[in-house]
Amino acid sequence: MKQIKRTKISEALKLNSFGEEINVKGWVRTRRGNKNVGFVALNDGSTISNIQIVIDIAQFGEEFLKPITTGACINVNGKLVESQGKGQTVEIQATEVEIYGPADPTTYPLQKKGHSLEFLREIAHLRPRTNTFGAIFRMRHHMSFAIHKYFNDKGFYYFHTPIITASDAEGAGSMFEVTALDLNNLPRNNEGKIDYSEDFFGMQTNLTVSGQLEGELGAMALGAIYTFGPTFRAENSNTPRHLAEFWMIEPEVAFYDINDNMDLAEDFLKYLIRYALDNCRDDIDFLASMYDKELVDRLLFVVENDFVRLSYTEGVKILEESGHKFEFPVYWGADLQSEHERYLV
Amino acid sequence: MKQIKRTKISEALKLNSFGEEINVKGWVRTRRGNKNVGFVALNDGSTISNIQIVIDIAQFGEEFLKPITTGACINVNGKLVESQGKGQTVEIQATEVEIYGPADPTTYPLQKKGHSLEFLREIAHLRPRTNTFGAIFRMRHHMSFAIHKYFNDKGFYYFHTPIITASDAEGAGSMFEVTALDLNNLPRNNEGKIDYSEDFFGMQTNLTVSGQLEGELGAMALGAIYTFGPTFRAENSNTPRHLAEFWMIEPEVAFYDINDNMDLAEDFLKYLIRYALDNCRDDIDFLASMYDKELVDRLLFVVENDFVRLSYTEGVKILEESGHKFEFPVYWGADLQSEHERYLV
Repeated sequence: MKQIKRTKISEALKLNSFGEEINVKGWVRTRRGNKNVGFVALNDGSTISNIQIVIDIAQFGEEFLKPITTGACINVNGKLVESQGKGQTVEIQATEVEIYGPADPTTYPLQKKGHSLEFLREIAHLRPRTNTFGAIFRMRHHMSFAIHKYFNDKGFYYFHTPIITASDAEGAGSMFEVTALDLNNLPRNNEGKIDYSEDFFGMQTNLTVSGQLEGELGAMALGAIYTFGPTFRAENSNTPRHLAEFWMIEPEVAFYDINDNMDLAEDFLKYLIRYALDNCRDDIDFLASMYDKELVDRLLFVVENDFVRLSYTEGVKILEESGHKFEFPVYWGADLQSEHERYLV
Repeated sequence: MKQIKRTKISEALKLNSFGEEINVKGWVRTRRGNKNVGFVALNDGSTISNIQIVIDIAQFGEEFLKPITTGACINVNGKLVESQGKGQTVEIQATEVEIYGPADPTTYPLQKKGHSLEFLREIAHLRPRTNTFGAIFRMRHHMSFAIHKYFNDKGFYYFHTPIITASDAEGAGSMFEVTALDLNNLPRNNEGKIDYSEDFFGMQTNLTVSGQLEGELGAMALGAIYTFGPTFRAENSNTPRHLAEFWMIEPEVAFYDINDNMDLAEDFLKYLIRYALDNCRDDIDFLASMYDKELVDRLLFVVENDFVRLSYTEGVKILEESGHKFEFPVYWGADLQSEHERYLV
């Protein structure tokens, strides 16, 4: 095959140099066609959009096309042409096609039909190839980058706080223990207790539940820091609150007061949403179409409105006068619980 | 005190709006002076450079100045004036000073004298306030941001791979075990072995030694990904090779060949060094002056020269003809060891 430098499909879809020969590589989403021509929707993960490869059957032969099924990985040289189909502007008239790897339709689990999220969980090694997970992973990337860009542009320093630690930052309770001891042969001290002086760090250690303590020390030296790293909770909770392993952002700033904190939180959230709308719009539109029709409106609502700032006293007053029955009673002086926060929002 | 929006010292040092009243806050590095005037070198971590606060003793009084010692945290309003001292362009003529927190010179461990890195290890909560650690933390931030920016600009997606895992990516051997079981009361199965079905994930788990496996799956779906997260080795090694906990970058790209890999590695390293020289020059200059006079020359050498590309066969030939005695013998077909790589570089 002729050696042509690969063009990512995200780039190819923006080209208008019709007649130029380009190379694309990727995974087949679908193939359809008739006796004369085959249409392959090719995706390489650079964007949710596929590029259409048009294959002239007279040129390649029926037999050659057979292994080009959903999931197959192919390498295509072809001429960029204006597309007649709706919803796409360019397509590729194949001149050469190489099959890197076929995907037997009787065994390859990802087929054209919709798959449940539960089923995709069972094939975690393949689910990044689906539209839903592809969209989520691309958005996760863009949001991670936006987080770093936001703080970098504002002069915050990224602070890596320890993952293995001996401290329990929030007294949160359920922590994962980390040890290099042989659990089948634990050393014991004179009192029969586990002798952690024999362990890697010479003491009992666990996975961090928060980088806040070290973050505060960083802020007291560098002025403004943020953490963005994995944190862990060994709570078997099926709520949206905590995963066993999740990435958390903790800004810590010297000399900030409560108003500075509120300004930062509001500005940060709006920045991220704006960044997502500007940089991940096609993935957002896909997720909106599949899962939540009002997604874009809700995002725009957050960006376009000022956040309400409510004093504790005002908040308690609204809750008391709501007539709503809460699990935890509300009175001035009580800590607000999640149910109260949810009601106020 | 008059309320003026705080200016970071990194910004204040760039101002030339002489006569303007500004506010700075920070930690006192040193105080010197005479009967008439006190000079405070103030640092807020935004830069390695201090700003000089000039305090008129007749106005504030001797007694007021006493707690303003090394480490004290102060809040200063003052007039921006052109500096007469060498190595600084602006200073602040104090109009109001508030002491947020004193630092008793008889007990505060960071004093003007140099401190050994070993001593600073003992006061890890304060060492980010030193020039050395401040420089390193700021550079670590800039390098982390440059890593994300490089890959983002090139269309790579940041992929968060699992930290807690059941796989041993490299057969590396020494892993930290992660468990939610009570080590003092481990559940046992019928064979007397630890019953990991009772553990949080229902199986034995450990901290990741590499995100490569999941990274490859990501690349086979999104085209080009990189990981940048913590990895762990339970090796008690006092070499520069592995810390117990360290952050690692792993790019994985579909359709790359060995030349693409080499191009990426060379371009990436040069980009990072150039970024450091452009964005952290004062911190690099400080580290060069304290620890390594040839640092900048060496960095420039890497940026300005093409990397030599050597085939395995050529490498083995050079080693064989070197006359150097290696711990592991060299012959065509043998794996190259660190000692061989070191010799070649």
